[in-house]
Amino acid sequence: MQLGIIGLGRMGGNIARRLMLKQHKTVVYDRSEDAVAALVKDGSTGVKDLAGMIAALEAPRAVWVMLPAGEPTEQTVKQLAELMSPGDTIIDGGNSFYKDDIRRAHELQEKNIHYVDVGTSGGVWGLERGYCMMIGGETDVLERLEPLFDTLAPGYGNVERTKGRKVPDQRAERGYIFTGPPGSGHFVKMIHNGIEYGMMQAYAEGFDILKNKSSEALPEDQRFDLDLTDIAEVWRRGSVVSSWLLDLTASALAGDGKLDKYSGAVADSGEGRWTIDAAVEEAVPVPVLAGALFARFRSRQEATFGDKLLSAMRFGFGGHVEVPK
Amino acid sequence: MQLGIIGLGRMGGNIARRLMLKQHKTVVYDRSEDAVAALVKDGSTGVKDLAGMIAALEAPRAVWVMLPAGEPTEQTVKQLAELMSPGDTIIDGGNSFYKDDIRRAHELQEKNIHYVDVGTSGGVWGLERGYCMMIGGETDVLERLEPLFDTLAPGYGNVERTKGRKVPDQRAERGYIFTGPPGSGHFVKMIHNGIEYGMMQAYAEGFDILKNKSSEALPEDQRFDLDLTDIAEVWRRGSVVSSWLLDLTASALAGDGKLDKYSGAVADSGEGRWTIDAAVEEAVPVPVLAGALFARFRSRQEATFGDKLLSAMRFGFGGHVEVPK
Amino acid sequence: MQLGIIGLGRMGGNIARRLMLKQHKTVVYDRSEDAVAALVKDGSTGVKDLAGMIAALEAPRAVWVMLPAGEPTEQTVKQLAELMSPGDTIIDGGNSFYKDDIRRAHELQEKNIHYVDVGTSGGVWGLERGYCMMIGGETDVLERLEPLFDTLAPGYGNVERTKGRKVPDQRAERGYIFTGPPGSGHFVKMIHNGIEYGMMQAYAEGFDILKNKSSEALPEDQRFDLDLTDIAEVWRRGSVVSSWLLDLTASALAGDGKLDKYSGAVADSGEGRWTIDAAVEEAVPVPVLAGALFARFRSRQEATFGDKLLSAMRFGFGGHVEVPK
Amino acid sequence: MQLGIIGLGRMGGNIARRLMLKQHKTVVYDRSEDAVAALVKDGSTGVKDLAGMIAALEAPRAVWVMLPAGEPTEQTVKQLAELMSPGDTIIDGGNSFYKDDIRRAHELQEKNIHYVDVGTSGGVWGLERGYCMMIGGETDVLERLEPLFDTLAPGYGNVERTKGRKVPDQRAERGYIFTGPPGSGHFVKMIHNGIEYGMMQAYAEGFDILKNKSSEALPEDQRFDLDLTDIAEVWRRGSVVSSWLLDLTASALAGDGKLDKYSGAVADSGEGRWTIDAAVEEAVPVPVLAGALFARFRSRQEATFGDKLLSAMRFGFGGHVEVPK
Repeated sequence: MQLGIIGLGRMGGNIARRLMLKQHKTVVYDRSEDAVAALVKDGSTGVKDLAGMIAALEAPRAVWVMLPAGEPTEQTVKQLAELMSPGDTIIDGGNSFYKDDIRRAHELQEKNIHYVDVGTSGGVWGLERGYCMMIGGETDVLERLEPLFDTLAPGYGNVERTKGRKVPDQRAERGYIFTGPPGSGHFVKMIHNGIEYGMMQAYAEGFDILKNKSSEALPEDQRFDLDLTDIAEVWRRGSVVSSWLLDLTASALAGDGKLDKYSGAVADSGEGRWTIDAAVEEAVPVPVLAGALFARFRSRQEATFGDKLLSAMRFGFGGHVEVPK
Repeated sequence: MQLGIIGLGRMGGNIARRLMLKQHKTVVYDRSEDAVAALVKDGSTGVKDLAGMIAALEAPRAVWVMLPAGEPTEQTVKQLAELMSPGDTIIDGGNSFYKDDIRRAHELQEKNIHYVDVGTSGGVWGLERGYCMMIGGETDVLERLEPLFDTLAPGYGNVERTKGRKVPDQRAERGYIFTGPPGSGHFVKMIHNGIEYGMMQAYAEGFDILKNKSSEALPEDQRFDLDLTDIAEVWRRGSVVSSWLLDLTASALAGDGKLDKYSGAVADSGEGRWTIDAAVEEAVPVPVLAGALFARFRSRQEATFGDKLLSAMRFGFGGHVEVPK
Repeated sequence: MQLGIIGLGRMGGNIARRLMLKQHKTVVYDRSEDAVAALVKDGSTGVKDLAGMIAALEAPRAVWVMLPAGEPTEQTVKQLAELMSPGDTIIDGGNSFYKDDIRRAHELQEKNIHYVDVGTSGGVWGLERGYCMMIGGETDVLERLEPLFDTLAPGYGNVERTKGRKVPDQRAERGYIFTGPPGSGHFVKMIHNGIEYGMMQAYAEGFDILKNKSSEALPEDQRFDLDLTDIAEVWRRGSVVSSWLLDLTASALAGDGKLDKYSGAVADSGEGRWTIDAAVEEAVPVPVLAGALFARFRSRQEATFGDKLLSAMRFGFGGHVEVPK
Repeated sequence: MQLGIIGLGRMGGNIARRLMLKQHKTVVYDRSEDAVAALVKDGSTGVKDLAGMIAALEAPRAVWVMLPAGEPTEQTVKQLAELMSPGDTIIDGGNSFYKDDIRRAHELQEKNIHYVDVGTSGGVWGLERGYCMMIGGETDVLERLEPLFDTLAPGYGNVERTKGRKVPDQRAERGYIFTGPPGSGHFVKMIHNGIEYGMMQAYAEGFDILKNKSSEALPEDQRFDLDLTDIAEVWRRGSVVSSWLLDLTASALAGDGKLDKYSGAVADSGEGRWTIDAAVEEAVPVPVLAGALFARFRSRQEATFGDKLLSAMRFGFGGHVEVPK
């Protein structure tokens, strides 16, 4: 099949490359000419602007937008919509907020342009491992595009089959699913990231306790000097907490068991935050997902105003002088 | 009545003084001779060691130990027990762990020495406002000592009577209660402090959101530059969140609305920690009390090892470089 | 002064009554004729519809809308705006989401109609105690309406003056503040409620631990059978956790120490949820405020789907059969 | 090698079987004669009591105790110690509290009996997959027993090698580690379980949000009816949250996507609780691990006393009547 791709960063570029491995044709655009040139070298057709892309694609067209969520994606979707013909499809493969997807799909529907949202997991490993995709959109549109999704997905690979699984639709086992109407793909990907935050924080806290078991604040006969590198490694072998995130942890600790090159300021992105908002909207209690997000917020601050207020209150009722930091 | 007092710090000294205001007699000891001298000037009888105290008190003796929890209290209780006679009473007015109280009471029972544990709230304000006391021990022993407790307590004061209250025992309304067997006084005080942590953190978080509403990270038309000093003050007047802790907050913010003199490193003490342990033993979910304790733990660290591990994982799966702190 | 009031429920009716105690004039409307009649009996002028209210008020008019947040308030504001003249003012005294206030103020500005948002705390006690008010709007408009706010507020009362307070503006000490532009009043009130949730949950968890200290799951010599009614009462006297919420707790426990008439399903309202959303927007960690909200979410469910999934996983890896509930 | 095994439940029996697959000799005891008989049929030597076991083993003996933590293990260790000779070794393969290990090792040291604690992960899957083991004890004792551990462990298997790993000791890569002195094995296993709780809860919360996205409490155009079975399956393929726990989740949901056979009452065991206690001792903030434990506590209760108190307070300040459950 033929696919237009806009945005040739780490994700967009590799998506084009993975498609071409299976003989799909790609027409690519990026505001960086170098990025376009690199893909052209790998077999893509490069274009100079969106109009050029529309001209280079056969109708019904499909264009995959792989840009930062928010304004960059919003503007590009708008411009594409003006250039496209009825029956064409815009695929947002980035990390858009699912409510934006719902709105855009409604707006585009009036022009009879289709909107597909793809939650894409796989990061820098996707070219090699394939991309795990959660895809929202109209069913007939998704079915038409299915050869692309099937190529991008990891496929069966060497993942053991799930016991008891009997559903005839085998998409999930090949690494992609059709989740429902527009917005649902990004919604599922958003929750995926929320879970990711929670899992990461669970490991982080556990290793923190292991690390601090050698603390001089503990009685001497209660201290252990534990080898975190080996612990992460052994848990990869038959333990209940084995996971891909643990594999990465083992690898990071194998390089430097003290992680001294990190300062500990951890970024968070829209998905982690929107997950909490969604839980609040649905009245679902999410102490762990929220706790994980708050830990990241806290990690980026030296002190909070709230902490200072605690010290001020303690001084007020007990004359307690603040402890040194 | 006559009471021996060991430990003349901020709490012990003022307890002696408040008792003497109502004509009770105090025999005092502290390892600092100056502390003893200051109390002698205010009317106490000073002694040079525990033996001197035992000699100066009439049987059945009562000695109030007001020392740091742990070894200082433990050693003093042991030494007193060796010097005392059957029928005498040791009162631990400090912040002992309630399981230590239970153990000590058992050990002393063999010598027919009584043990009373008093959870004492009131801090630097106690001399003036009186001490709120939660008292564990054998009922007849507590009743004998009641005149002391009644003097130390705030009394009815100008606190409005609770609607619907009909119990005949008026101790609680005068500011002290008999909570049950030894250990129960400190247990109730421990939970008091656990709640205190939770309330303080609730204010801290709320004011933190108010403060950050002026952040440049927000869209300009969504920012407010709020006057925290006035907000704390107005909430003291008819709002649902009025409290003594809010009074202290208003006072702290009246002095310096930015709290710049605090670095935000907040101490925690045994009670906050033991509260969580007690909840875990009872299988009671305590997200708020635990969250408040963890916020204090976090406040004293620049970065946690866990935070660094999060950054390392993010680099591993997404090539994400850590954000600057 | 003269004020129109729309919505004569528990809050709106008492606001009219408190104003009339100080000789202000009120023109009232409610879709319930009985509600209007009751206020007319107390001295208000009753009207039959919004047009009637506009006719009965002298320009520049001020109308206080005291309706449920969301559609009821939204529609009423819209209808009023169509009837009003330039220079008139709409006061939203309900619990609107502050972003709705910001939007409405912008929309009304085009018609030169002023918008004031009043976060009102005080509940069923307001008629007697006065209302604590956080007020957003244009300064000159608020100053014109100030006699109304001053009457509704609690006034100095017998609340002790805050030490160190030196600001010349004495509004806060009389129980109301001007918080800034439209929306800021409801924003501050929203945070007030968020803090309220946190404080309530701190007490709830503490009393839960006290209650369960008699549990038969504990070793017999570690159990205490504590009198929660007396504990709540004694903490009102000189303890660090004294507050109005504790007064209410003591009153509830005085009536029934087991609280058997409650099933424990706890409602939550917009403010508690929006507080979390605001914290997430500002990247402020709020473990306690969020934990309190989640506890309410959980309280209304018998079991969560998440709980079932935990049981399913435990069966999967350990063959563990679910414990009986 | 030769090993005595006491306790032939799911874990103990399979440990004997896995050892015999590699020609190790096992002497087994259980208070159930049937359990012993079953193992004898598979090749073990059965004995009738501890004295019989001691007689059947050659010195220096090694006996693996695989019993419930607490009294059963404590009593068996004591009885073994009385029967054993200097140089013999007791291995506690159960889930003992690590502080009990430290104490026992000290007590046994006086008799020159060695104590080894093995934290064993693998559950019902261990016979087939091998057991992941974290082992505390004296180094020379552990080295002598190493052939047993090596047989029980999963071995290299088909787990990909960790990039960047360069340590010469290959134990971890074969699925077991020597963690340090007695107690350290169970300590590491305890943290493993703490992390397990956190990860499980992260999935539980995420799937809960997915499930409730079809709730009628949401606006109709914001609802999705998501296929949780397929979502769990697709995340196993190249996503960041893939793990063994997710494999189990996918399997559970493949059988019954609604999990209707579970009521949602989730047990917790010592390790999850001790993890929190350890974190509190070390002053490490663990919001996620604690949140996961509290969710289990809450899952087993219909309503908490705390919830009722919230309702009582809400009635007190706002006249709010409790919502129906």
